[in-house]
Amino acid sequence: MQKSQKIAIVGSGLVGSLLAIYLKKEGHTVHIYDRSPDIRTVNFSGRSINLAMSHRGWKALDGAGIGQKVRDVAIAMEKRAIHIGETLNFQHYGLNGESIYSISRGVLNRKMIDLAEEAGAEFFFEQKIWDVNLANATLQMGETERGEWTDVKYDMVFGADGAFSRIRHRMQRQSMFNYSQDFLNTGYKELHIPANEDGSYKLDKHSLHIWPRGKYMLIALPNLDGSFTCTLFMPFEGENSFASLNDRPKVEAFFKENLPDTIDVIPDLAEDFFKNPTSTLVTMKCYPWTFEDKVALIGDACHAIVPFYGQGMNAGFEDITVLYEMMQKYGNDWKTIFSEYEKSRKPNADAIAELSYRNFMEMSTKTADPNFILQKKIEKRFAEKHPEKWIPLYDRVTFSTRPYSEALAVGDLQEIIMQEILDIENIQNIWDSEFIEQTILEKLVKN
Amino acid sequence: MQKSQKIAIVGSGLVGSLLAIYLKKEGHTVHIYDRSPDIRTVNFSGRSINLAMSHRGWKALDGAGIGQKVRDVAIAMEKRAIHIGETLNFQHYGLNGESIYSISRGVLNRKMIDLAEEAGAEFFFEQKIWDVNLANATLQMGETERGEWTDVKYDMVFGADGAFSRIRHRMQRQSMFNYSQDFLNTGYKELHIPANEDGSYKLDKHSLHIWPRGKYMLIALPNLDGSFTCTLFMPFEGENSFASLNDRPKVEAFFKENLPDTIDVIPDLAEDFFKNPTSTLVTMKCYPWTFEDKVALIGDACHAIVPFYGQGMNAGFEDITVLYEMMQKYGNDWKTIFSEYEKSRKPNADAIAELSYRNFMEMSTKTADPNFILQKKIEKRFAEKHPEKWIPLYDRVTFSTRPYSEALAVGDLQEIIMQEILDIENIQNIWDSEFIEQTILEKLVKN
Repeated sequence: MQKSQKIAIVGSGLVGSLLAIYLKKEGHTVHIYDRSPDIRTVNFSGRSINLAMSHRGWKALDGAGIGQKVRDVAIAMEKRAIHIGETLNFQHYGLNGESIYSISRGVLNRKMIDLAEEAGAEFFFEQKIWDVNLANATLQMGETERGEWTDVKYDMVFGADGAFSRIRHRMQRQSMFNYSQDFLNTGYKELHIPANEDGSYKLDKHSLHIWPRGKYMLIALPNLDGSFTCTLFMPFEGENSFASLNDRPKVEAFFKENLPDTIDVIPDLAEDFFKNPTSTLVTMKCYPWTFEDKVALIGDACHAIVPFYGQGMNAGFEDITVLYEMMQKYGNDWKTIFSEYEKSRKPNADAIAELSYRNFMEMSTKTADPNFILQKKIEKRFAEKHPEKWIPLYDRVTFSTRPYSEALAVGDLQEIIMQEILDIENIQNIWDSEFIEQTILEKLVKN
Repeated sequence: MQKSQKIAIVGSGLVGSLLAIYLKKEGHTVHIYDRSPDIRTVNFSGRSINLAMSHRGWKALDGAGIGQKVRDVAIAMEKRAIHIGETLNFQHYGLNGESIYSISRGVLNRKMIDLAEEAGAEFFFEQKIWDVNLANATLQMGETERGEWTDVKYDMVFGADGAFSRIRHRMQRQSMFNYSQDFLNTGYKELHIPANEDGSYKLDKHSLHIWPRGKYMLIALPNLDGSFTCTLFMPFEGENSFASLNDRPKVEAFFKENLPDTIDVIPDLAEDFFKNPTSTLVTMKCYPWTFEDKVALIGDACHAIVPFYGQGMNAGFEDITVLYEMMQKYGNDWKTIFSEYEKSRKPNADAIAELSYRNFMEMSTKTADPNFILQKKIEKRFAEKHPEKWIPLYDRVTFSTRPYSEALAVGDLQEIIMQEILDIENIQNIWDSEFIEQTILEKLVKN
């Protein structure tokens, strides 16, 4: 147990709420501020992608003793369901039958705030933080940016306020602060597949559904009530883009031609399409993440990534796992806790940013490619025979707590080997042979 | 001649002043704002690196009809003078005897403001711009950031306010604005070599002096009054760093041991060292650079680079050349002028950022490396024989107006070829042979 500190967390999202629970466990006073109304009192907006909880997320939740409560609202997805034309192809996720878990962001966030309140954290909603004094951990809040501000001093402040963090904004003005934000030319829009009248699912419940179409793709993740939250990823400009689909007939014709099996299951297609906003996708990197023993960024506030690996929340939760490990190790020495936390997490945050960026291509194009499917089959067979020699990249990222940076490096090596294997003549027929197994073993030794 | 516009330029530095002259030529009303006092009325601070004007800079100045007036305050540097131990090595710059030109930033900036005023631009000093309304080109200014602001509306606004631009700051908050800032772990400090009592120079006047020492280096550029402005580039932390040289005896011992021939020519070494600030070096990239036909960034405000190629000012001046070309081409269609300007300049700004970053290594390490010196000799000989086939990278960047992006690409190719040539057995003795000439020719065809 640490010496009790008075701590402010800015942002009542998933990472802010879970961090509050961990800090309460250690006996601290925890105040959480959010500029938005209490999400438990409002309808959640139509701009979210369902979460895919995986190993790193569960580890952090179990560490706080709330894993089971979240499992109660999660749906296991054991496979990808690939929709091509009228046919459906299943690609199982984990080598050992592991699943990722679909959870609605709104449902999870409400539950996390309840649990943080139960743990004793105090929430202050509709409180706008405009600035922070880094040197003395003082929040400056008020109605408007240019109006009167009130100062509230803490022992330390956590910025869990997302990709456009106000707390980071102040740190950005420090000298020697490295920062980048890069927007994709691809945006996204939420659509909706409702439940059948009897509450049953219109598509296979235990799948993450993908309609891979190259430059754009549609995905659908199940909800508890029998519905699916769909997300259409598509370029902003050009052919088949949000700009070109600018009226109802065009949207309907586009879906009929390119996504024919969705017509029957998305009844309010055109209405949703024009009601729901088109959202942007950004990769944000920065460093340092902390200021002395006073201020620390966590989650999207210090490493916002694109959603194509389903690791945004998982990476944010893993920040908390690592921070907590440092708290256990360094006691009340918050300067060292913060500095070891940022040093440990930064290379892993950069690695998952890169992997997530690359995975758009995997989801939108490769999942429909016979070569890719063959590659996955070969990798799976080899990994089953030599589990100590080959953990496939997806499994390493999703079903392990090995560092993301290691996953990126090992994954690149595996990819080189597999491309050489796929170049072997007649590989379609001999992929499951001892020759291929031996060839991979030799290449592993050489590299 | 364009339709006259009411234009504000934020920033009275080199780029802002030259842009004002160009805009006055076209008959516009031009107001220039700066948060600092008039540089003509104050002593210029000890944190500057002398400018190295080269081809792109002269082209922009000549285009405004003021090249000769600037040549009057410039000193030709025809070569690098490399100081190693007690020996001095000269490396000439241009293939055709071209020079780069040393100019004090303070001297040039004062002259440029004079010339812009003569051209009819109005300057407003000590006016703090805090924000800008992008949609209607309205500046918001006042005494303090949180006090009363006055709005002043223009037809368009140029942000020429440097690497930490306020105008860009507003654009950064727009969605889809890409941005990065990266600080080097190397900083710099100004030092001073005064003139001899008779006004003569203590070192060769027509050289850019370099003391290449690997992780750190000292450079010196001549001034009109017989003095040299020196810049020490050095890591912030670690061995031989600004952090480790923390008292007078350490500074003096360090210079005596590592830069012995400077002891006699820098009389106020320790005093200057602790009086002058240690400055940071940042690479800043962003996109877009413009907002509709209302706001445009120019110079460091949209592409701040490290100083190791001496191209920061030259690149900023070339922005103006290109902007002016677009004005000639598209008349009063400012939307197109702005959009063609940013599209044309962005890849070149990225390329010179990369080249400048790499050039620290060339200046601080390679200039002392016999292999590098041999490489330059081979390149020079080949370029003299085949001027249409080989323009060395330095010449292309410094003594031509070929796009920076082309220089980067061609330079990479040349580097590959030269590394292969340097690997040839006995190259030290056969470098000036027909065999080497033919080998380079063959490699050029192959690539």
